[in-house]
Amino acid sequence: MSATPPEAADAAVPTSLEAVPTPALVVDLDVLDRNIGRMAAFAAQGGFALRPHAKTHRCPQIAERQLAAGAVGLTVATIGEAEVFAASGARDLFIAYPLWLDEDKRARVAALAANLPLSVGVDSAENAARLVGTGARVVIEIDSGHHRTGVAPGDAGALASAVRGLGLDVEGVFTFPGHGMARDADSGPGQVRRHAAQDQEKALAEAAESLRAKGIEPAVISGGSTPTAGLREDGVINELRPGVYVFNDAMQVALGSCTLEDVALSALATVVSVPGPDRFVLDAGSKTLGADGNAWAEGFGLVPGYPGAVIAQLSEHHAVVRLPAGARPPRHGDRVALVPNHVCNTVNLADELYVVQDGRPVHRWPVAARGANR
Amino acid sequence: MSATPPEAADAAVPTSLEAVPTPALVVDLDVLDRNIGRMAAFAAQGGFALRPHAKTHRCPQIAERQLAAGAVGLTVATIGEAEVFAASGARDLFIAYPLWLDEDKRARVAALAANLPLSVGVDSAENAARLVGTGARVVIEIDSGHHRTGVAPGDAGALASAVRGLGLDVEGVFTFPGHGMARDADSGPGQVRRHAAQDQEKALAEAAESLRAKGIEPAVISGGSTPTAGLREDGVINELRPGVYVFNDAMQVALGSCTLEDVALSALATVVSVPGPDRFVLDAGSKTLGADGNAWAEGFGLVPGYPGAVIAQLSEHHAVVRLPAGARPPRHGDRVALVPNHVCNTVNLADELYVVQDGRPVHRWPVAARGANR
Repeated sequence: MSATPPEAADAAVPTSLEAVPTPALVVDLDVLDRNIGRMAAFAAQGGFALRPHAKTHRCPQIAERQLAAGAVGLTVATIGEAEVFAASGARDLFIAYPLWLDEDKRARVAALAANLPLSVGVDSAENAARLVGTGARVVIEIDSGHHRTGVAPGDAGALASAVRGLGLDVEGVFTFPGHGMARDADSGPGQVRRHAAQDQEKALAEAAESLRAKGIEPAVISGGSTPTAGLREDGVINELRPGVYVFNDAMQVALGSCTLEDVALSALATVVSVPGPDRFVLDAGSKTLGADGNAWAEGFGLVPGYPGAVIAQLSEHHAVVRLPAGARPPRHGDRVALVPNHVCNTVNLADELYVVQDGRPVHRWPVAARGANR
Repeated sequence: MSATPPEAADAAVPTSLEAVPTPALVVDLDVLDRNIGRMAAFAAQGGFALRPHAKTHRCPQIAERQLAAGAVGLTVATIGEAEVFAASGARDLFIAYPLWLDEDKRARVAALAANLPLSVGVDSAENAARLVGTGARVVIEIDSGHHRTGVAPGDAGALASAVRGLGLDVEGVFTFPGHGMARDADSGPGQVRRHAAQDQEKALAEAAESLRAKGIEPAVISGGSTPTAGLREDGVINELRPGVYVFNDAMQVALGSCTLEDVALSALATVVSVPGPDRFVLDAGSKTLGADGNAWAEGFGLVPGYPGAVIAQLSEHHAVVRLPAGARPPRHGDRVALVPNHVCNTVNLADELYVVQDGRPVHRWPVAARGANR
């Protein structure tokens, strides 16, 4: 995106992994690039536009790699994220969120839309009315089964028509099939992902028809998400918005949408206490990992170096790791890598990412949009 | 602490609560000061030294009010927090954490100890050995039933003796009775708090005796915590380290250690979507509230303005509030205050606190130690 190479923005890079202070978030550059390349290739082969959700990394250097690999633009969740990525060179942004614009936010959206193509999600005429005159285009949000925001698929055409009546451009429809990550007592994770993918296709197809019935041809028919991206059923979707895939996390491993080898980010921690043979304590707690549980697995993240170990207790600065019987505990000062449950929340806690290649630090990237929640 | 009044550090203060952008953390100054004053009075009446845990607020302006009300110093969890509070004028700090010092952290601890009285928690001779030569004093950590860090009470004397043998000053013993917040199927929250308070007293008394048996008189016998602070059994404890009490949160309300009227901090959010009569959606998600659950109550926080409402679903930028049957949903753009489950993690997500008095913004305080996890 930017004319400046990302290296120029790097703070001092430690000379070795041992010199990285803990707790720290460490990104394996080769795994990151492989994840970015794989999703880009999948989208290209399927004929999808790829618009990755940048909320996961909040990091311009990673957005730049996604765009260089062929992404058509970025998805963001907040105006603040849009501002950070616009300032670092993004040329096309979609705020996939039903913004409620007060005067200040209205001015910020207008300033963005004056400089690049900007779309905003809408699930009511009330939200849409506040966008009039900002220059932003609209994408109608559909509820495909996650029951968060979005209108019923069959109501999409009526809303699109009302939005157009306000003088706004309607680009199409989008949904987030977040129920593809929720625990279901009757189904395994693979089934849950498949069902969510099917729900998504069905809802978007019905919504697109609903627009056509009102004489509006949807240019964009946009779906999520890392767990469902690879599970396309038919040809209705023409845009994908996965986010987590750049890093992956313990939740995605549990869902089967990636393997442990595909996890690019870990929290590097130091053993500060070994109270007994059955447990040890690390200096990465909920202020480093995030407090997210994992609907599909025990504990607050994975401990790949200690098979069978569980992060049984998480305080703000303590991860208490329970070892299986017979396992050998580490020693004080040993370093242990943890895989967070939900990497989007983990990254948002950090000011920077330490990027390593072949085990050697090569970059130190700021999480420039950390905390950009407005 | 600082010679500069906190007002001087304020960024531009909005002219009204309506002008505070959402999502935002809002602190009621009168409730904050009442909480600070009440705990200070309790400590003074009981003859305790009060050393509040500043991890909860990470904010020098609040530390200043705690010290002005009579706190003897501050407790912190990390070297980074200690550096922020030392820079803003704190004169006596205790890092209640079994630090593992590499060369860089060792230099930072030594720099702090050169300028003010600094104590550090220790639960092994290995950790203690790394403190030699830094000028920091040592307080021995005891496990009183939380089973996180700390030695068994009866082993405290042996460790204290070993630490003294390394040439370090041993000030006394401390514990964190965190099991006073854990859910117990057989007991109500009041019983859990009482049992934890009893465990704490018993463990600290045994640990103090264990030191005395080695000829070491503990000057400091230090206990937590907001849920147990008011439940002293006998006279063994001479220092209290509560943190959450300045703000309180949904967890403390559920535990019965405060009432809703004692909650000083809320997350102010805007209604962005009203998908049906049974629910509405706010712009404060896990990146604003934190993802912490509440062991004692349903949902991701409290919604005091909507009796019976539950934050049923929390995404990064969405709180989905489920309304009880018959309740009237708010309208788009309405503002709703949420009480977080675990306020320490909430504050660590924000760059600043909007401080209000009589419903009018009066300060805007930076969370200066946000992210100071190392």
